[in-house]
Amino acid sequence: MPPILTAFANSPDRGRGLARDMRVRWALEETGQPYAVRLLSFDQMKQPSHLALQPFGQIPTWETEDGLVLFESGAIVLHLAEQRPGLLPRDPQARIRAIAWLFAALNTVEPPVVERSMCTLFEHEQPWFEHRLAQLDGRVRQRLGELSDALGERDWLEGDFSCGDLMMVSVLLRLGSSGLIDGSPNLTAYVARATARAAYQRAFAAQRAVFEHSQQPGA
Amino acid sequence: MPPILTAFANSPDRGRGLARDMRVRWALEETGQPYAVRLLSFDQMKQPSHLALQPFGQIPTWETEDGLVLFESGAIVLHLAEQRPGLLPRDPQARIRAIAWLFAALNTVEPPVVERSMCTLFEHEQPWFEHRLAQLDGRVRQRLGELSDALGERDWLEGDFSCGDLMMVSVLLRLGSSGLIDGSPNLTAYVARATARAAYQRAFAAQRAVFEHSQQPGA
Repeated sequence: MPPILTAFANSPDRGRGLARDMRVRWALEETGQPYAVRLLSFDQMKQPSHLALQPFGQIPTWETEDGLVLFESGAIVLHLAEQRPGLLPRDPQARIRAIAWLFAALNTVEPPVVERSMCTLFEHEQPWFEHRLAQLDGRVRQRLGELSDALGERDWLEGDFSCGDLMMVSVLLRLGSSGLIDGSPNLTAYVARATARAAYQRAFAAQRAVFEHSQQPGA
Repeated sequence: MPPILTAFANSPDRGRGLARDMRVRWALEETGQPYAVRLLSFDQMKQPSHLALQPFGQIPTWETEDGLVLFESGAIVLHLAEQRPGLLPRDPQARIRAIAWLFAALNTVEPPVVERSMCTLFEHEQPWFEHRLAQLDGRVRQRLGELSDALGERDWLEGDFSCGDLMMVSVLLRLGSSGLIDGSPNLTAYVARATARAAYQRAFAAQRAVFEHSQQPGA
């Protein structure tokens, strides 16, 4: 029985690959691991049966035949990267450096990116919207500038492609059509290089198929 | 030569132990590892010499004699937990579950807590302050309720005290005098239990001494 990943039955991103199951799907494709998917409605995510797996009522979770239940996309991606080659260097110092970029993606770059998304979604009719959006754009731009300087002319953040790049690109993709990344051509090229990978393409197609199925009459 | 941790010369928290070097100091005390500290002014943190170690111009960083340079408090704490016993279970499934809580602290609980702090610091004179604060209080309370349910009557989130607890308590401490945690007596007890640990007390005293020294005439 393959391990089971949970994902949205109706992803709020409408199949654009921005939900957090996509990060895990991508890691699974990079490391060549088969998996099954259990889709959940928003109601199901808040039921006791799912909260027993994911205390915050979110997706994704990861369940294996030998009884492991895991949550947090960062932890699942790290776990997969530790199980098979492809997402972590063998050298111990390079390995923990790649993991530092995984944390940087999740704890330094993603928070202002998510805050900006929430502001555009939920505050666009508030009198403070323009002011707040300008502030948040500034915070995101600062991080992008620092990241751009750190990447420089290299292909990836730390040697070969790693789980740090996978997570950083996943976070940058959440900026979508904001145009904020356009000021950093090396970051634009970095995202293009990562999303051109066959593993990304397979993972994207898999989550896209879920969205398209959900749009069919009677689905 | 002991490894070197960087910290604020003048911490904006005025010695309350909320800056991110405290998480690393605590992990160092839990695992019994000696270290030295290099203090940085805000100006120094944005200089090329520090940006070469920490791309986002933050503290803490971690430098060892054998050439490792690490950033992101989550990555440093995980690295220390992997080096010596005390912060990670030996069993592989329990180990990655503890790491999941480390990620949950940093990517699920901390973002709304930090957002609330930033709002109280930077938006308190704005006409929308009360409205925004109420929204953010709601987001923090939701996470605290879920965390409280997950902890239940247990002492720690996953078996023995782990790096997941260390990070979760560090995040909860940032709520300070907001009173938000008071609605969850088991979380209040959890924080008290963690901060009563001798390792926490030693780490707190060490960062506090830096603040007190900075207050002396001529310091």
